[in-house]
Amino acid sequence: MNKPTLHTSLTPSVLHLYDVSNSTVVIIDVLRATSTIATALYNGARCVIPVDSVSRCIELGKQIDGITAGERDGKIAEGLVYGNSPFEYPREFIEGKTLVLTTTNGTRLLQMALDKGAKEILTGSFPNLSAVCEYLIKKKQPTILACAAWKDRVNMEDTLFAGAVIERVKEHFHINCDSSQIAETLYGVARNDVFEFMKSKDASHYHRLIGFGLEKDIRYCFTPDVANVLPFYESGKLNIHKW
Amino acid sequence: MNKPTLHTSLTPSVLHLYDVSNSTVVIIDVLRATSTIATALYNGARCVIPVDSVSRCIELGKQIDGITAGERDGKIAEGLVYGNSPFEYPREFIEGKTLVLTTTNGTRLLQMALDKGAKEILTGSFPNLSAVCEYLIKKKQPTILACAAWKDRVNMEDTLFAGAVIERVKEHFHINCDSSQIAETLYGVARNDVFEFMKSKDASHYHRLIGFGLEKDIRYCFTPDVANVLPFYESGKLNIHKW
Repeated sequence: MNKPTLHTSLTPSVLHLYDVSNSTVVIIDVLRATSTIATALYNGARCVIPVDSVSRCIELGKQIDGITAGERDGKIAEGLVYGNSPFEYPREFIEGKTLVLTTTNGTRLLQMALDKGAKEILTGSFPNLSAVCEYLIKKKQPTILACAAWKDRVNMEDTLFAGAVIERVKEHFHINCDSSQIAETLYGVARNDVFEFMKSKDASHYHRLIGFGLEKDIRYCFTPDVANVLPFYESGKLNIHKW
Repeated sequence: MNKPTLHTSLTPSVLHLYDVSNSTVVIIDVLRATSTIATALYNGARCVIPVDSVSRCIELGKQIDGITAGERDGKIAEGLVYGNSPFEYPREFIEGKTLVLTTTNGTRLLQMALDKGAKEILTGSFPNLSAVCEYLIKKKQPTILACAAWKDRVNMEDTLFAGAVIERVKEHFHINCDSSQIAETLYGVARNDVFEFMKSKDASHYHRLIGFGLEKDIRYCFTPDVANVLPFYESGKLNIHKW
């Protein structure tokens, strides 16, 4: 039986090397966009609309009476009301509402995947790790794990999440991709305590968020399956995919 | 004391993100360009002239009566006489001769670093690991470990070499670079037997070269310090740097 291929794109700078248009693309922005997307949907948000600019976020927020949220460089972007922390979106706040979200890296990468004609787009993070893996295994489609990275620089946490997915799904895919092997090896070293690993390596995003007092966010964003839904992009928005 | 910075560029696609013009750039193309460059110089080649096209290689070879060599996709390029294997350049053949070399990834990356105004360019590989590390430690300059990768896709062997360098020099540099941390972690897993690690992960270049019957080349290219010179780029050619 022919297994589908799986590749990992460690930064948006190399996404063009992969056959996006025939693939399921998993957008990965662990700290914190895709963790927050899973959390908002898990807590009952009507949908999440990812947009690639602050001005578009503000405009759309007004038009549809949505919650405007997003960050630039890890802080709430000027003109927006909410940020990029999963803790801002508990059920009692977000249920039934529409979140309009823009982030430094994640939403930009999603737009790139769209522009390249991705067959399907979903978002992945530790809080919805199992949902992503189960979907990939069931669907048996060529898959690209697309790391959002940090301003095109490869980062630790997105690579680790790619590795976590690969560890779980690899038997079901044909993987001829050194980036995937690197990610899985890295995750193998970190898996017992991903937070401590990030800390011990002084990973750049760990450093940045700790500087903002956000240890709680980091710990949450490395906790598997606490918001185990499958955010799926369709008609301009992310919704929970039921299948 | 302020330590100089060290960054790792895992693929030429991200080289532009780093401050090349103020840095010592180490070009890394383990399988096999930079291993072969070290070997040819160690065995007495007068110099190695890296060129970025086969036609330029042929033209220059005629003009200076040099040895024209190079590969495309792992095989000797059409029109050239020699390939990219370190075993083609023993002392009895290469001593006193000029090698004009073009390769798929390594020479192209060197040209990129030149175009971006790199302060210094040298080439690194396991056969000259110690020479590279000693130089970086002594010089105390901002450093970029620039992996040639494979057609812009991150590869295992160049990442491993970057990790080997980082393991040895890290105390002397300020490293705020996830790619460097990833490379060092990977090397930590592989270090006891890099060849076996490449094999166990079915690394793409391992697979490609084994398919050509080149296990001997791979084993050589992972052997530290067997051609322990420092190839240094100046005035259009690579020469052994004596310092």
